[in-house]
This record gives sequence, structure tokens and C-alpha cells, in this order.
Amino acid sequence: MTNVVLLGLKGHQGCCLDEIARREDVRLAGVQDDDPTVLEGLRGRSYTDQQTLFTTSPDELLALPQVDVAILCEDNAARPGNLLACAERGWHIMAEKPLALSLEDLGAVREAVERAGVRLSMLLTMRFEPPYLAMRHEVAAGSVGRPLLMSAQKSYRRGIRPAWQRDRATFGGTIPFIGIHALDMLQWQTGCRYRRVAAAHHNERLPGAGDIEETAIMLLETDAGQMVDIRCDYLRPGKAPTHGDDRFRVAGSDGVIEAIGGEVSLLTAAHEPRVLAQPEGQSIFGSFLDELAGRGRHPITAAECFAITEVALKARQAAETGEWVSV
Amino acid sequence: MTNVVLLGLKGHQGCCLDEIARREDVRLAGVQDDDPTVLEGLRGRSYTDQQTLFTTSPDELLALPQVDVAILCEDNAARPGNLLACAERGWHIMAEKPLALSLEDLGAVREAVERAGVRLSMLLTMRFEPPYLAMRHEVAAGSVGRPLLMSAQKSYRRGIRPAWQRDRATFGGTIPFIGIHALDMLQWQTGCRYRRVAAAHHNERLPGAGDIEETAIMLLETDAGQMVDIRCDYLRPGKAPTHGDDRFRVAGSDGVIEAIGGEVSLLTAAHEPRVLAQPEGQSIFGSFLDELAGRGRHPITAAECFAITEVALKARQAAETGEWVSV
Repeated sequence: MTNVVLLGLKGHQGCCLDEIARREDVRLAGVQDDDPTVLEGLRGRSYTDQQTLFTTSPDELLALPQVDVAILCEDNAARPGNLLACAERGWHIMAEKPLALSLEDLGAVREAVERAGVRLSMLLTMRFEPPYLAMRHEVAAGSVGRPLLMSAQKSYRRGIRPAWQRDRATFGGTIPFIGIHALDMLQWQTGCRYRRVAAAHHNERLPGAGDIEETAIMLLETDAGQMVDIRCDYLRPGKAPTHGDDRFRVAGSDGVIEAIGGEVSLLTAAHEPRVLAQPEGQSIFGSFLDELAGRGRHPITAAECFAITEVALKARQAAETGEWVSV
Repeated sequence: MTNVVLLGLKGHQGCCLDEIARREDVRLAGVQDDDPTVLEGLRGRSYTDQQTLFTTSPDELLALPQVDVAILCEDNAARPGNLLACAERGWHIMAEKPLALSLEDLGAVREAVERAGVRLSMLLTMRFEPPYLAMRHEVAAGSVGRPLLMSAQKSYRRGIRPAWQRDRATFGGTIPFIGIHALDMLQWQTGCRYRRVAAAHHNERLPGAGDIEETAIMLLETDAGQMVDIRCDYLRPGKAPTHGDDRFRVAGSDGVIEAIGGEVSLLTAAHEPRVLAQPEGQSIFGSFLDELAGRGRHPITAAECFAITEVALKARQAAETGEWVSV
């Protein structure tokens, strides 16, 4: 039996809990959140059992014995401390992103994880979604030739954001929180390596946004003459048909591939423009559990999690300083 | 009778010639290009007459008497010299973009045009196209609130580019040639004022591209906390359904408006998402001729042409130096 604990209910824990519910040999040993109402909402769900600990105390959760895996979905400021605590206990970790809000904290986490020898992954959920699996497959197959210009949009709905996001101290910024998805996605899809970044972000203090930068832009160069532009915003108005308007585009020497609205289209010199079939989505937490059980390999390495968090923090630094930053 | 001459057949002269054909009181007094075959292709067209001079010699064209207006569609390197020559002759000028390939030349042109008191405009043709007129109208009407994040894509087909474009000396770069359209468009649509720019461009030397940078990205900040991202590429493969894949998006405090594939869509908090009706397109050269004849005002000022050329040249400098540049 694999015992899993969940610290915080402020992220993508849903996809992990669903996976726990699907598995006979995995159970939720405990769950913590500082909001008792949210916590109580989980009682009786199929991923809990009679012995599942419900607590508002992180210390109580961290004191549980015989834990194998921790899922970290707390606010962004609490994450590095929890990462250290879990690593010290020898627990494997699936963490929300980013891993830390400063390079110093990130370094401490890296050291602790390596010392403990635990498996660390991060909830880069987009890597497991059908459109992006299809895109990556085509790029790897050479359909667009050599990738030259990679672009992304992450556009989210406006609205009253949770209190921890409205506070810069516990949120950390739109670039490390949202931009990191796009930074990871474009690198994962194309195999490029970022070399330097220029960026801008702005907090307009629209109603409900608090300290959140409603807009952010990044421009990156790779070590091979390729370039990347990423824009993020929290400006989709209430009547928008979906929460997010995510877009990814890779323009290469032989074609252009693009995902908009969940549809992936491919333009090449060889074939008429076409919409691509998409593979099944995969379970990020499922593949993590499988690797821990000796079945296959979870596709997100700890090194990638550290590296992309570092890029995101340096991109935020580029926005804060108004200077190019080497990554 | 208004006498018009045309120097060079390497740009958007078509829209000007069509306008000449439509007008009884305007004639083409002369046309020059260094390619005799291209030049001969114009003989007998409705915008020519028996007296129209056809010549491969710029000097011969510039020696014509009683000229009122010059259209400049030569290569980008020849433009500043022709601007000076036309201004000295007191000819009003509709010029291709950019006005010059260096800030020094641009300064000389500005001085000559102001000294001569001639009317100068630039072939910022997109300002007269229905989708962008519709977008500008909605933004001005406040439909998206305060513009916060402005984005553009100019994606063009690959292929064998003309010789003058394949040579950096006569082309000048993708940012001043293509990027300038997007720089002007976003400023014109939103009234923002650029403050600084970071940029990147890259010449992959794909077949047919020569010195042309196939990719270019610009990131701009305005003087009011807004931001702009622009990407340009010459990477649309041969099977692409259209030459260009132009996109413009303005995300504001109250909504998002966007033009893709010639369609303009508006998302606001107040209304369901909708596709906008578009006004009639306008004739850029027609409105220029009208203003010269005392009828109405042509909407592109000389000051705008100088300013946006300067921004484009500084953006190219930002790409060349790898540093932020104030604009």
C-alpha cells in the first residue's frame, strides 16, 4: 500500500486525488488545508477512507508515520519549507509550481532533495494534455523542421482571485506561477535551451486581482539562435466561454504547428493544412506512482523542475529590473 | 490635373495606381524601375496615358516638370535619397516604409521635408483595412476598457524573395520592413506611446531568404505600464492558404478584441462573445490625394511616419545589441 498525503488544497490536487481513487494500492493517509470548510468538503469522497487524517495543521500532517508520497498544493510561499520537510522525511514529492520564490530557497530545496534521494516532480499538467502531446510528437518527428520561433499565450479569466494569490508574499508573481507553464511547454516541445530573457509585468490592481500582475511578457533567446515570445494575462472577461485561452505555436524551417482552443493544426510545405488527431491524455500523478512502483518512467525529471523554476525566477527578475538576464 | 510619378515598383504601388485609374483629375506622369521587364508590364494599363514616361533612370524621372506627388516604392536603401530629392523639388510624397535605414538618414529626411513644407505620408496600408478599422473603432469606444496588453503577429510565406530584399544593404531588416506595420498598428489602435524596446532577430539563411531575418520578436513597454509583444516571421510554408497570417490582439481592463484571419472578435464582461461587422476599407492614396485637394484630412501625419520609423530602427538596434533601447 502506498500512503499519500496532501498538503494544501490550493492547486491542481484534483488530478492527483482522482488517480488515488482509481487505485486499489494507493490511499490518502492525510490531507491538510488552513481552510476548514474546504477541508471538510473532501470528507466521504472516494479517494478518502475511514483512517484519512483531516487537519488544518501542517505539523500534524507532517507527523504522520509511514508516508510514501506527498502532494504539495499549498500557497507558493509555504512550498519551499514543505519541500524541505518532506525531503527530510524521505517522502517522494509531487509539488505545485514553482518550487520556490527565490533562488536561495530553490538552492536549499535542491540540496535537500538530492541529499534525501527522494523523487521530486512538479505539476506541469499541460505536458499530459492531448493537444500538447500531439504537438510534441509532430515536432519530434520533424514535421516543422528546425524550430525557430516558439510562441505561447496563457490568458486567464478575470475575477476575484483567492486571498493567497492576491498577496504578493504568498503568490510570488504571474511569471513564476503562470509563465512557468509556457516556459516548460516550449522547451519540452522543441528541445530548445534558453540562454537569456527580457520580460515585463504589470499590476493594474483591477478589482479582485490584488497584487497579481494582470499582464506579463517574456522574450527569450536560446543558445542556438531560436527565439521565444510568451504572453500571460488575467484579462479574459466574465463572459469568456472558457477559463483559459491557451495557445502554443512553433514555427520552424519546414512548417508551422499550433494549438488554439484545444485544436492542433499543422502547416507544411509537403501537405495541405490539416488538423491533427490527438492521443489520449495521460495521468501526471499516475505515471509518477507507476515509476515509484518500478513501472516505467515518469517524464518529468527533478532536474527539469529545478531548471524551469530557476528560469521562471530569472524571468521575473528580468521584469523587475528591466534588464536582460542570463538563464 | 494632379501629376503623379512613381519611383520603383517594389512595394505597395498597386493600391496607388488603382486610385489613379479611378480619378479623372489625376494622371501618372512617369514611372521608373530598374527592371525594364517589370516596367514594360505597366504599358497600356488604365492608370497610364500616352504621355506617361517609362524609364529605368531615376534621374530622368526626377527631371520631369510640373510634378505634384511622388510615390516611392524603391528598395529600402534608395528611399532616403529619393525622399530628399522629391522634397527639394517641392513634391508631396507617399513613401514605402521605412523612411530610412539609419537614424542619421532619417534626421536628414525630416529636416528636408520640414524645410520644403511638402506633405509626407507612408504606405501603412493596414490602417485602411476593414478588420483594423473595426478594431480601432471598438477600442476607441471603450469596449475593452483600458488597453493593457497589445500583441501582434506578422507571419509571411517562405519563398524566393526579391534580390533587393535578400541583400541586407538594400533591405535593412525584418523589423524595420515588417515589424513597423505592427508597431504602427498597435499604437494607432490604442493610442499608447512606446517607451522602451527589447528585441531579437535571426537570419537562418533558409533557401530564398538571403540576409532576411526569418524571425524577429519585439517586446515594448509604454509610458503607462502597458506592454506589447510582436512577432514576425517568414516561415509560412508553401502550402499555407494565404501569404500572410496577421493577428492583432488588444487585451484591456474590460475585455479582449482580436483580429485573426480577417475576422474580428470581441469578448467583454457585458456581452456574449461576438464577431464584429467591419466597415468598408478605405483608399490610402485616395485620402492622401483628397487632402492635397483640400478635401478632408489624410489620417497619417508626417510626424507619425518619422516617429514610427525611429521606433523601428531603435527596435532593430535593440535586436542587434541585445540590450533594451529607449524609444
